[in-house]
Amino acid sequence: ATAPAAAGDAKAGRAKAVGCQACHGLDGLSKLPDAPNLAGQVEPYLVKALTEFRNGTRKNEVMSVAAADLSDADIANLAAYYSGIQIDVIPPG
Amino acid sequence: ATAPAAAGDAKAGRAKAVGCQACHGLDGLSKLPDAPNLAGQVEPYLVKALTEFRNGTRKNEVMSVAAADLSDADIANLAAYYSGIQIDVIPPG
Repeated sequence: ATAPAAAGDAKAGRAKAVGCQACHGLDGLSKLPDAPNLAGQVEPYLVKALTEFRNGTRKNEVMSVAAADLSDADIANLAAYYSGIQIDVIPPG
Repeated sequence: ATAPAAAGDAKAGRAKAVGCQACHGLDGLSKLPDAPNLAGQVEPYLVKALTEFRNGTRKNEVMSVAAADLSDADIANLAAYYSGIQIDVIPPG
């Protein structure tokens, strides 16, 4: 099982997300075809993805650099921020 | 630059997604803490992720198996289906 994600501080995450907005937006909506939407994404998934980019288990030209210097707190805060953005899904027809 | 994603057939993608719903839901909303939401995700990102799981660039216990036998058409169709699910993002406060 994955380690329980320490609930991060979304406000601190929003400040940190300034470094992410070029591709992911502050609103969590992707600005580039390669960048996924993050708005309302599953919090432990975001923690896992950022951790894997930081430790190299998962590789991506941009993210390997972007995540390199993130602390555990940064990761928890970013995950709290983006997962906290509310999305409504219109059930497929 | 990533290869242009061949626009898939969302209807065929929905049929294929029956194999994905245990974790991702047919509605694209995650059913498990490790599984990301896919609803409204960026289509070329989904194509890239599935392709990387299939060719091993990206590894995950479940997805490496789930993606192993997908054809290019399956990948395009699944990406079309899940990216086509409409989401509305409520801009963060």
